[in-house]
Amino acid sequence: MRGRGRLITIEGVDGAGKTTLATGLLRELTERGLDAELLREPGGVELSERLRELVKDPRLTVGGRAEALIYAAARAQLVEQALVPRLERGTWVVLDRFVDSSLAYQGAGRELGIRSVSELNAFATGSLTPDRTLLLVVPEVVAKGRASARGAPPDRLEREDEAFFARVREGYERIARAEPERVRRLDGERAPAEVLADALSNVADLL
Amino acid sequence: MRGRGRLITIEGVDGAGKTTLATGLLRELTERGLDAELLREPGGVELSERLRELVKDPRLTVGGRAEALIYAAARAQLVEQALVPRLERGTWVVLDRFVDSSLAYQGAGRELGIRSVSELNAFATGSLTPDRTLLLVVPEVVAKGRASARGAPPDRLEREDEAFFARVREGYERIARAEPERVRRLDGERAPAEVLADALSNVADLL
Repeated sequence: MRGRGRLITIEGVDGAGKTTLATGLLRELTERGLDAELLREPGGVELSERLRELVKDPRLTVGGRAEALIYAAARAQLVEQALVPRLERGTWVVLDRFVDSSLAYQGAGRELGIRSVSELNAFATGSLTPDRTLLLVVPEVVAKGRASARGAPPDRLEREDEAFFARVREGYERIARAEPERVRRLDGERAPAEVLADALSNVADLL
Repeated sequence: MRGRGRLITIEGVDGAGKTTLATGLLRELTERGLDAELLREPGGVELSERLRELVKDPRLTVGGRAEALIYAAARAQLVEQALVPRLERGTWVVLDRFVDSSLAYQGAGRELGIRSVSELNAFATGSLTPDRTLLLVVPEVVAKGRASARGAPPDRLEREDEAFFARVREGYERIARAEPERVRRLDGERAPAEVLADALSNVADLL
């Protein structure tokens, strides 16, 4: 399933700085002469976009299990239509959110169990695993301030309570502890240039 | 998860006679004084209906894994919103297609593996298992004739080739062999009244 390209995923709660880091990282990889692309789930794949619309629609009743399965379905199509072809032709992909988001949000946040959601996603992705995952960690108050500064109305998931987001954060921490080689925790409270430099040193061995 | 109601599912390929049997069975159960209802996946649950539209849309590219996950998501919501509440209040549910359809169509037909698709569906349904499953078996030529007599244009799944449908049929047979107590094979080529009488004798122990 894996080609010659590398898959680097960026994870963390909303407002952690994922988009800023992903954009900076893409620029740095491109400047080093690599064929690199930035994707953000659902990644422009039509089925995945349509599924994402459903799961975010505040007018629909979506249970936790259905939610986890819909995210997994969107991801399955993203892997098949967008990721595998790029990795096979040697493109590096910087991906804003991937399987770990579901482990944190549905597995831990919705309390469906990280293990169950992990098995689901192994089926969805054909066990495609990132070469490296950069987990941005910021204090809750910082993430909230950044996310609310964007001014977009909260979607169905963003309306969850504090206990939900506390479980999501703890879920991310558990993933990082379980896979320290793949998942690197980065302090996201620093200036973007510092976070980027830290990220680059954490992918240096892949270059 | 299980209440006092019973769940009877009807399975088989298109044209096997599922709707005719389901309607007849509902009438018989109701005449016996039972609180019974007939549902057909996706069952009128809004999210499930919307998911079904996506998976059947011939204009969309839908991979086998995404397809299996979308069916499982639709089923998860059906279980949560429609099946569990009915079973808990003692209603008998006659359900036209359920998990076994995915095992046959995605597990066997799409060659994703009956076991993988079964695990996915155990997650989706919280392991809700039918009390009885009536599998209608008819020769391929009979099923095709009945299905095409309906005149509806074929959807994305109905456009599959003969090898696909041969795998689906064999998948159903494997399920029936693996769970003979739950899954009863009925010869669907007979007159509807005969099939119904056979079905009733196969659910008699539940009554």
